[in-house]
Amino acid sequence: MTPSTPDQRLSALNITLPPLKSPVANYVPYRIAGALIYISGQLPFDPAGSGQCLRGKVGEALSVEEGQKAAYQCAIQILAQLKGALGTLDRVQQCVQLTVFVNAPPEFSAHPQVANGASDLMVAVFGVAGQHARAAVGVGSLPLGAAVEVAAIFELGAA
Amino acid sequence: MTPSTPDQRLSALNITLPPLKSPVANYVPYRIAGALIYISGQLPFDPAGSGQCLRGKVGEALSVEEGQKAAYQCAIQILAQLKGALGTLDRVQQCVQLTVFVNAPPEFSAHPQVANGASDLMVAVFGVAGQHARAAVGVGSLPLGAAVEVAAIFELGAA
Amino acid sequence: MTPSTPDQRLSALNITLPPLKSPVANYVPYRIAGALIYISGQLPFDPAGSGQCLRGKVGEALSVEEGQKAAYQCAIQILAQLKGALGTLDRVQQCVQLTVFVNAPPEFSAHPQVANGASDLMVAVFGVAGQHARAAVGVGSLPLGAAVEVAAIFELGAA
Repeated sequence: MTPSTPDQRLSALNITLPPLKSPVANYVPYRIAGALIYISGQLPFDPAGSGQCLRGKVGEALSVEEGQKAAYQCAIQILAQLKGALGTLDRVQQCVQLTVFVNAPPEFSAHPQVANGASDLMVAVFGVAGQHARAAVGVGSLPLGAAVEVAAIFELGAA
Repeated sequence: MTPSTPDQRLSALNITLPPLKSPVANYVPYRIAGALIYISGQLPFDPAGSGQCLRGKVGEALSVEEGQKAAYQCAIQILAQLKGALGTLDRVQQCVQLTVFVNAPPEFSAHPQVANGASDLMVAVFGVAGQHARAAVGVGSLPLGAAVEVAAIFELGAA
Repeated sequence: MTPSTPDQRLSALNITLPPLKSPVANYVPYRIAGALIYISGQLPFDPAGSGQCLRGKVGEALSVEEGQKAAYQCAIQILAQLKGALGTLDRVQQCVQLTVFVNAPPEFSAHPQVANGASDLMVAVFGVAGQHARAAVGVGSLPLGAAVEVAAIFELGAA
């Protein structure tokens, strides 16, 4: 059977969401305001739950492909937070916006390819509803020395 | 006759919106959620449609004035995306927020002047409704080596 | 008596909000769209109203503790803008999101601790409703050379 809901697609992709990471400081992983859920900036922790974070500058210590993997891992954390917040990804109506912060040196310019590591997962899991507005920028430093940080906004359907 | 709608003001300013640029990766140029439209981060492509992007660091390779021009060009792309999404700028109720990322060296501090290149255009086109909340920051790198990237949120009126 | 509203808590904390700073360029300090109020990126001006801004890179010229103080001062400016917009902080239903931009050198990694300077104040003033989604990133430069800039979104209750 073709997977037709986000939860089913996640299973079909053989993705097991990791245990929830607590925020590393005094804030919460998400906030719901009206139909929008704001997900805090997520770091590229190991999806297997080891607690390790992908660190280093993309285009320097890390290749573009490793940066993509970091963006993917951030997106997995976003899905885990969503699932923790809502109980099921099926309540998501659409992915509205991703903001992708790439830890990179001044001459780096391949942010779009890096950010696709997160964007592609949203489309794989939510289909057309996973296509989102996006801003991808290069920052000089990130918490814990992480390679990528991704913040997100989703719209929820009726409960 | 005094121009009284955004579309009329755009004409009065002799601005022709460029052909739509496709996103440079796996995302979409905008998403609508409720009454808000989120516009993806726009780069300073030539408004004449040559495909050239204003590149370089503001305060280093580029002057503040050139940075302003880059911000203006990002704002033109935002208007083009809005027009593409809505058919007319007249459906815009207000410009809610601009986030302006300036590609700049560590000692740069004139981000507000650079960002005005985008902000001034919003006010010229939408009048008081074009005045917006804004964050302007300096980033270490941007996609394609662009000088400026601007993301935006607008509120829409009834269709 | 235990302080039970944000305005009362502010008094109990002995915080006097500073006179409103005008935006440093062509934008407005806030925009309301539906139930959301977007506050422009605030800089760490002296809460006593001297006009001085905390400048320098956190982790270089400034310690983490000084960065925290800068984040706190940005948050005070956010509260001042909120109060100016609404007349009272008691109309705030919840703090939805803080985006904290830390002016830092490439090797810096303690952004969460710096950002807590802003987050802790929100929780002190709004209680549980002050807990928010957050993104904290390190940028290479900020307007006026400021140490920190913080943008915010709050949800408002019925007037």
